[in-house]
Amino acid sequence: VHHASGRHDEKNGMMSRAKVLTIDTMNPTVKKVEYAVRGPIVARAVELERELSEGMKKPFSEVIKANIGDAHAMGQQPITFFRQVLALCSYPELLSDSTFPEDAKSRACSILNSCGGNSMGSYSPSQGIESVRQDVARYIERRDGGVPCDPDNIYLTTGASDGIVTMLKLLVCGEGATRAGVMISIPQYPLYSAALAELGAVQINYYLNEEKFWSLDISELQRALDEARLYCNPRALCIINPGNPTGQVQSRECIEDVIRFAAQERLFLMADEVYQDNVYAEGCQFHSFKKVLFEMGPEYSETVELASFHSTSKCYMGECGFRGGYMEIINMDDDVKAQLTKLLSVRLCPPVPGQALMDLVVNPPQPGEPSYERFIKERTATLSTLAEKAKLTEQVLNTVQGISCNPVQGAMYSFPRITIPEKAVKEATDMGQQPDMFYCMKMLEETGICLVPGSGFGQREGTYHFRMTILPRTDKLKILLNKVQEFHLKFTQQYS
Amino acid sequence: VHHASGRHDEKNGMMSRAKVLTIDTMNPTVKKVEYAVRGPIVARAVELERELSEGMKKPFSEVIKANIGDAHAMGQQPITFFRQVLALCSYPELLSDSTFPEDAKSRACSILNSCGGNSMGSYSPSQGIESVRQDVARYIERRDGGVPCDPDNIYLTTGASDGIVTMLKLLVCGEGATRAGVMISIPQYPLYSAALAELGAVQINYYLNEEKFWSLDISELQRALDEARLYCNPRALCIINPGNPTGQVQSRECIEDVIRFAAQERLFLMADEVYQDNVYAEGCQFHSFKKVLFEMGPEYSETVELASFHSTSKCYMGECGFRGGYMEIINMDDDVKAQLTKLLSVRLCPPVPGQALMDLVVNPPQPGEPSYERFIKERTATLSTLAEKAKLTEQVLNTVQGISCNPVQGAMYSFPRITIPEKAVKEATDMGQQPDMFYCMKMLEETGICLVPGSGFGQREGTYHFRMTILPRTDKLKILLNKVQEFHLKFTQQYS
Ligand SMILES: Cc1ncc(COP(=O)(O)O)c(C=O)c1O
Ligand SMILES: Cc1ncc(COP(=O)(O)O)c(C=O)c1O
Repeated sequence: VHHASGRHDEKNGMMSRAKVLTIDTMNPTVKKVEYAVRGPIVARAVELERELSEGMKKPFSEVIKANIGDAHAMGQQPITFFRQVLALCSYPELLSDSTFPEDAKSRACSILNSCGGNSMGSYSPSQGIESVRQDVARYIERRDGGVPCDPDNIYLTTGASDGIVTMLKLLVCGEGATRAGVMISIPQYPLYSAALAELGAVQINYYLNEEKFWSLDISELQRALDEARLYCNPRALCIINPGNPTGQVQSRECIEDVIRFAAQERLFLMADEVYQDNVYAEGCQFHSFKKVLFEMGPEYSETVELASFHSTSKCYMGECGFRGGYMEIINMDDDVKAQLTKLLSVRLCPPVPGQALMDLVVNPPQPGEPSYERFIKERTATLSTLAEKAKLTEQVLNTVQGISCNPVQGAMYSFPRITIPEKAVKEATDMGQQPDMFYCMKMLEETGICLVPGSGFGQREGTYHFRMTILPRTDKLKILLNKVQEFHLKFTQQYS
Repeated sequence: VHHASGRHDEKNGMMSRAKVLTIDTMNPTVKKVEYAVRGPIVARAVELERELSEGMKKPFSEVIKANIGDAHAMGQQPITFFRQVLALCSYPELLSDSTFPEDAKSRACSILNSCGGNSMGSYSPSQGIESVRQDVARYIERRDGGVPCDPDNIYLTTGASDGIVTMLKLLVCGEGATRAGVMISIPQYPLYSAALAELGAVQINYYLNEEKFWSLDISELQRALDEARLYCNPRALCIINPGNPTGQVQSRECIEDVIRFAAQERLFLMADEVYQDNVYAEGCQFHSFKKVLFEMGPEYSETVELASFHSTSKCYMGECGFRGGYMEIINMDDDVKAQLTKLLSVRLCPPVPGQALMDLVVNPPQPGEPSYERFIKERTATLSTLAEKAKLTEQVLNTVQGISCNPVQGAMYSFPRITIPEKAVKEATDMGQQPDMFYCMKMLEETGICLVPGSGFGQREGTYHFRMTILPRTDKLKILLNKVQEFHLKFTQQYS
């Protein structure tokens, strides 16, 4: 008893020693961060999977995750050549294995030669391996029809996320009415809103035009900017093209207009081009901001500050887990560039396997090399399957009364608008939930399908959407689309 | 001419369009960041290497980089088993290759089974792959003699750097006299000062005791804290053990005292234990903060908030490029933990190959498995070579008049104190340079040896040091030490 009471005293002692770090004393900007792609719906999906595996009865036999652009998780196969080279780089003893193609070996040797001690286990320069940056520069020149690219403007990153956050970090400054503002599209990829919240910058929303295939109107940019100038210091304009979550592919004219707008209004341009190979719709084509900028002549190409971002995570490779990426920076002030390089050095370097993978993406097998045909076959198969699924998704969703879906011109998502009956809106609101969160949560519980509510990306007041990836295998996608259809009808009836 | 004049007008137009992002308008906290390990000395070393390769004549034939703890870059070989498993995970077709040992294959299969779609190319959960976190927890329990570890407290990170910055980010808050303060040792690993500058927190210096092997005195902690309380809100205490750059290994008593101090003063403890296997000196042993905390009883183990950090970059593996790491978090408030998980989700996940490698580090081959003997042999060879080099470095440096070097008890660095003649101090100061920067820059130009000046880590006013890694191969290390010796004598004569 004495001992127990001694412990009890200790416990009391503990009570009086409140925690150092509590929700009230933690960094307030972190609390403001939101990130819907991995929010409560996904947490519940993981729980449901566990419950299913424990034998619990559910109205479905599996959870289908269409919430995140994670191609391999949905069964997409990696490009053989890329993985062969990565294996060779990881375990160079394999260089004497005759089953590996010669081009894979020579690619592995040249990557290893650029690594300290010929090992992927050494830190690279903070800006990234020099030879990889050179390969990236040559890729950009080919992609952009010969517009020159300086490897010194290339920074390798830990996925595109890292590059985007780093650039935003350089741009924020000021307090009160001079606080830095950054223009982002609505709907947007929530990395942007999350990073701006964390950095304490002002998020300036411009709305994409759902009626016109989610295209960008300059007049809307102007409206948003003019309003924002009253309460903050707008410094940057972010564009996602092809669009996430909209699936929109911007026209060349639109890009020109955006560049003119940025020049006129003195905004730093950030072009998120991680879906640059994901273009499916007829008549659509990817135009890089860099290329358009340079074709507009020196008035623009020598003045407009531009950062563009790419990644190993999307396109035909879908290698998210390796966290590879790069950014290209145009017209950045030299002193700022030195500050950027210094800032990056604190984190030492991006992951070297991701850098190696980025190198392979920008320098894939060439005609005449042993791996060329297989590479082309695999890449084409993946991209044409994605194109089919983009079409299928749009078509099936548009057959459902109360769902209307713009064409999925590119990227990996559809973002259909859904009609939610008044009664359901009220029930959700009474529960303190967004109506489309309520809808998606119900869909998950009843069908096992995991989507992200439109409110996680932003949408015009009073409209509702969900984002769905087109990544599930075609057979599963068909099942999924049928289930969405059934669910939507049932939900509508229930709340009418 | 007309055309040229048109261009000229355009140029004028451009002139009037000043850059958006300049050194004066960029984020002011980024400008305050410093990171000496990759500072001007290293930039000059890279230049010198280029000049040498272009055939320029120098008083040396190669640049030896002893500035950064990058083992593979200095020729250390990776652990065969680790790289075999990574190759198998990268290119699973190799699973049918009979030259790979069975334990490597089964390890690869279990890692792949934990990846979405059985691919390292899928995103993992933001906190890290669940099975890897479980393996980390079991490793910690073994290491700490059975003290329990909950996998929910484990977060996988992009190198230890990422974990450290993330924890600091949670802790900062407040303005003016209530601005968050964080206690760091002097000398310190400059990631800490850099992160605090970027986050706008107050750096509170406590000085390690050079006279007592760089040990930590509680009275000095108290002095630093008492002074800091007058102008900020001290919230956290950071410890690096084994120490970088000091090479010191903390005694069990010292750790107990630190924990008591943190409890009394209500400080969040951050224990940087990335060198936990790098202990060389007789009588020294690594004690984890977690273990000591739990052995001090519930008064401490149930209240003191602790984050400890580990990495794949150091110890016997030295796999820096993979950017693997984990942190364990004890007694963190549940709401704050939820905020942490949310914050991490914005960056999606740490690199999966780094997570796989971390898994292998915490779950290496076991007795009876085919790869066990080779693994032990490789690990032992690396660690005993490091121990020899630690001793050699201390011994040779201490033979030089004007250099005095504490024993390198652990980690990978010596941090000797150097006497710099008055005349040299004056010349440096006149040039606006730190005297030890002046010394190290001269050493680089004359010998090709790249060290980091003590001023990059912090040191007591009026004392000078450099940091030198013990990583060069033994033959090179001997040459290096001789050159340092010669240089120091010459430098001393020159400025006497
Ligand atoms: C538009 C957009 N940008 C950036 C990213 C970040 O990708 P990562 O960090 O994996 O390269 C994503 C991921 O889905 C995205 O959709
Ligand atoms: C004490 C200490 N902590 C953390 C790190 C960061 O290592 P990494 O981010 O490679 O895991 C280092 C690297 O040298 C270090 O010395």
